[in-house]
Amino acid sequence: MSGHFITFEGVDGCGKTTQRELTATWLREQGKIVVETFEPGASALGAEIRHLLLSGEHVPVPEAELMLFLADRAQHVHEMLRPALERGAVVLCDRYTDSTRAYQLAGRQLNADKVNPPGDTLLLHNSPDGEARESPLGHVLNTMLEVAELGLRPELTLWFDLPVPEALNRMRGRAATGEVPTRMDEECRSFHEAVRNGFSTIFEGEPERVRRVDASGSVDEVQKRVHKVIGNFLGTIV
Amino acid sequence: MSGHFITFEGVDGCGKTTQRELTATWLREQGKIVVETFEPGASALGAEIRHLLLSGEHVPVPEAELMLFLADRAQHVHEMLRPALERGAVVLCDRYTDSTRAYQLAGRQLNADKVNPPGDTLLLHNSPDGEARESPLGHVLNTMLEVAELGLRPELTLWFDLPVPEALNRMRGRAATGEVPTRMDEECRSFHEAVRNGFSTIFEGEPERVRRVDASGSVDEVQKRVHKVIGNFLGTIV
Repeated sequence: MSGHFITFEGVDGCGKTTQRELTATWLREQGKIVVETFEPGASALGAEIRHLLLSGEHVPVPEAELMLFLADRAQHVHEMLRPALERGAVVLCDRYTDSTRAYQLAGRQLNADKVNPPGDTLLLHNSPDGEARESPLGHVLNTMLEVAELGLRPELTLWFDLPVPEALNRMRGRAATGEVPTRMDEECRSFHEAVRNGFSTIFEGEPERVRRVDASGSVDEVQKRVHKVIGNFLGTIV
Repeated sequence: MSGHFITFEGVDGCGKTTQRELTATWLREQGKIVVETFEPGASALGAEIRHLLLSGEHVPVPEAELMLFLADRAQHVHEMLRPALERGAVVLCDRYTDSTRAYQLAGRQLNADKVNPPGDTLLLHNSPDGEARESPLGHVLNTMLEVAELGLRPELTLWFDLPVPEALNRMRGRAATGEVPTRMDEECRSFHEAVRNGFSTIFEGEPERVRRVDASGSVDEVQKRVHKVIGNFLGTIV
């Protein structure tokens, strides 16, 4: 595939959607073919799944929530992401594989006690010295993500890191303008803290792919940081 | 859990729904508390997922289809199956884990070429003598089913086995009475053959749990066969 697959990640309120839009404009000005997309809900089937996930009309159990996000992912990869990359586009995607890890695994704390995988090979208990290891579902999730993503991994991920209290403030600002909050937005602060820590763990494990972008400050300040990271990656003169 | 979990499986048109209803009546006459349920679509969330899967309005890619069935499964287990079993009911469920294997794995032929799992441990190639082994997704699917089913396995499964041409005839009979066929009903004959072979493989691998019931003949004849299997299992005098 001749295109480039770049994902924008972070807690709700971190500003990634605004940054993605500005980045798309900036890249188009340089003559790039850019496709902007998002999860969940970019495909027609996905839009229906998004409603089930986020409208608040239903409360999927964590395992069902995970599967619904993965169903949206598979349809998105097949219908939109792979074709765009095959056409040579720079694809900017708002949320992807790392959101699944941060929200469903870290945020929802899906863990061994709940899923009871039967095979010993899946069970990675805490070590005797008390150091936490990867949770069993973390292990299973790798293979589930492989299935749902048809093997498509991002080349570059921008993690927009913002302290949770600041992100919550920004979300309240949006609500004041009449934007309807999603079921995820309405989760409690400790949930958003766990999600933020989830992103931090992913960043620490894959510092080459995942680049931390300080999401505090003005929109312009953050966009300059984005130009630097993406410019380096694409070999563009900034 | 003090109840009993019995599943009814087979290709579309095999008569399992009629048999489940008659079995429920028979067990209730013996004073049992019986809960009848089905997949996909028994929970409120599941009903919406069923529409996405079967109405034909959308065509989920095989991986998305699998995840949607698993999302329905998780919600069903959590909201309905486990609570019923904890109350001590005999739960008769129309389709469950074996339908996922037969339809999504065998029917859709989800395989290594499509999903590309990266880990060598997942790859079970054909042996040098040409004997086929379990497909890679078959291996991954075990863990995915564990997650979605929260570890809940059927104690007894009745596989209603009917030659595919006869099942297709019965489906045509239903269509003539005005019943709307689902997206699965409309699959081609080779798909239904692959599904039937999928059930056969499961039966061969777990002959203790899965009991083959000859689904040919009259409704009463088949129901007598069901009484024998379930009577033996529950220790009921038939």
